[in-house]
Amino acid sequence: MIRLAIDAMGGDQGVAPLVQGCQLALLHDPKLQLQVIGDTDQLASCMSFLNDTKASSGLRHRIEVVHASSEVDMTDDPLSSLRNKTDSSMAIAMDMLANKEVDAVVSAGNTGALVAFGVQKVGTQEGVTRPAICTQVPTTSGKTWLLDLGAMLSNDEDRLVELAKLGAQQARDYDGLTKPKVALLNVGVESLKGTPELQGAASRLELEEGLRYEGFVEGSSIFSGAVDVIVCDGFSGNVAIKTAQGVASLLMGKFAAASRSNFLKRAALAVVAPTLRHLGDDLNPSLYNGAPLLGLRQLVVKSHGHTDASGFANAIGVATKMAVAS
Amino acid sequence: MIRLAIDAMGGDQGVAPLVQGCQLALLHDPKLQLQVIGDTDQLASCMSFLNDTKASSGLRHRIEVVHASSEVDMTDDPLSSLRNKTDSSMAIAMDMLANKEVDAVVSAGNTGALVAFGVQKVGTQEGVTRPAICTQVPTTSGKTWLLDLGAMLSNDEDRLVELAKLGAQQARDYDGLTKPKVALLNVGVESLKGTPELQGAASRLELEEGLRYEGFVEGSSIFSGAVDVIVCDGFSGNVAIKTAQGVASLLMGKFAAASRSNFLKRAALAVVAPTLRHLGDDLNPSLYNGAPLLGLRQLVVKSHGHTDASGFANAIGVATKMAVAS
Repeated sequence: MIRLAIDAMGGDQGVAPLVQGCQLALLHDPKLQLQVIGDTDQLASCMSFLNDTKASSGLRHRIEVVHASSEVDMTDDPLSSLRNKTDSSMAIAMDMLANKEVDAVVSAGNTGALVAFGVQKVGTQEGVTRPAICTQVPTTSGKTWLLDLGAMLSNDEDRLVELAKLGAQQARDYDGLTKPKVALLNVGVESLKGTPELQGAASRLELEEGLRYEGFVEGSSIFSGAVDVIVCDGFSGNVAIKTAQGVASLLMGKFAAASRSNFLKRAALAVVAPTLRHLGDDLNPSLYNGAPLLGLRQLVVKSHGHTDASGFANAIGVATKMAVAS
Repeated sequence: MIRLAIDAMGGDQGVAPLVQGCQLALLHDPKLQLQVIGDTDQLASCMSFLNDTKASSGLRHRIEVVHASSEVDMTDDPLSSLRNKTDSSMAIAMDMLANKEVDAVVSAGNTGALVAFGVQKVGTQEGVTRPAICTQVPTTSGKTWLLDLGAMLSNDEDRLVELAKLGAQQARDYDGLTKPKVALLNVGVESLKGTPELQGAASRLELEEGLRYEGFVEGSSIFSGAVDVIVCDGFSGNVAIKTAQGVASLLMGKFAAASRSNFLKRAALAVVAPTLRHLGDDLNPSLYNGAPLLGLRQLVVKSHGHTDASGFANAIGVATKMAVAS
């Protein structure tokens, strides 16, 4: 049995898509048990599926609602959240994790606050200053771990080396690679390019064991599949992943619009639609939603705030898969 | 007549595609006159088209080859280029611009060195500390200027404000907008998000005249067309633009491969191919190749190093259009 605490209050579109995501995840995985934390009134209004014996077949005993009398808002800053939101759904979820009542926390809430509560209640692994947000991006040949995506905006040398180690550890644990190939994201591949921090990190990573340092890569290579792990500061990682999603949306939208313009194109579009859908899925935020916070002592998975139900189910799936692997 | 100095030695694939790009540009625009600067032997071997009376119809008197005895390499750092590459094609091109012998310089060479030579020989505009690399990206509703793309990796507050002013000026001069909408690229749209530098720049931009400050945007909004100018530090701008190109290549490649998998799909692909091509073109580096260095006293346009002939012709086109507008 995999037990997860779900912070149900963080989503941009209220609790409904998150609760639906929980339902999807429970239906998908019979070994899953969820503690759904939030405002009981709001949650109850979305859980009518539990009264429908057929739709909820066997779900009722695998989902439990836990009341939280407050929530962390997107505009709360991390430190004041720690001080003032001790009875929030996020804080309660993290307490459950710290007390080993659950195997992982999944939250679509405020990233800064989630990192802060994770550090405060669960703690970082030995030698890790601060967790990193990580995701696996699709490439032409497979998948590549990309981190940090915004847990910490600093780009100092020590942090870049720490991120490289965290990413390599993830690729070893999760993908079974002995010596993952690791690169640093930079504005050029030449060894003289970039900031002093990147220069310093590069020379230290050449000596690092447990990974193979492959040098610098540019943004255009994030999706090439040349390496297993790409390390960047939280700011540019966040920009890169969101830019990728923006481009995918732009291209898919334009293509669909253009293809509907005449009968022949509409007919052709019907034939290639599955390909197109599959392609869009590759970069669809909801299908690879669920970014683990690496470097904590226990497992916390961040979902996009504006996720839909299937995206949130996917984030729960990431937490489940990682909980099983660990 | 528009006169341009072409630094022909900077391209990743040698002089051939750059010379072909010059030929395309000359054929396209009868008012264009080019000084092509580089190693005369290498250049001559690519200019056989000038001997073909038909192919070169009228080109011969509009292209002149100027010898340069050295070139700036991609691995040269800016300061040593200024010291040691005074007889390079880049230095000679910039001298011509400083002496008003040409209206603009186009180069596919080392970005750092190009910025340094620009500052040294042409100088920055009053109140500008350093030029910025700028490009217009396609959006769902038009185009948006994005800067800086890597002229300077610093992200301090003064620089961000300077970039906002440079971008707004460009949108006023080039697009005829009275009060362009300007946003800062950040990891979230909430006003508390981001670095102290971004926070400081935001509050100063709210007071700025000649532009309308629209707040923060995320990477996913770069292609949404919501604003006229998006400002970012050189590092994340470079990452964003290259990531966008990487995603476009990934999606186009996957789509073409998947669509060729069976007869029906191949037939369908033939119908939608023009749409697909048009779509790819939108983010094809060669079709919006040519990024002006804003903030110099005269016009310098940077081309991608790995451009093909049509991409280089496009960069020449950008220089021509801006030279006419100025």
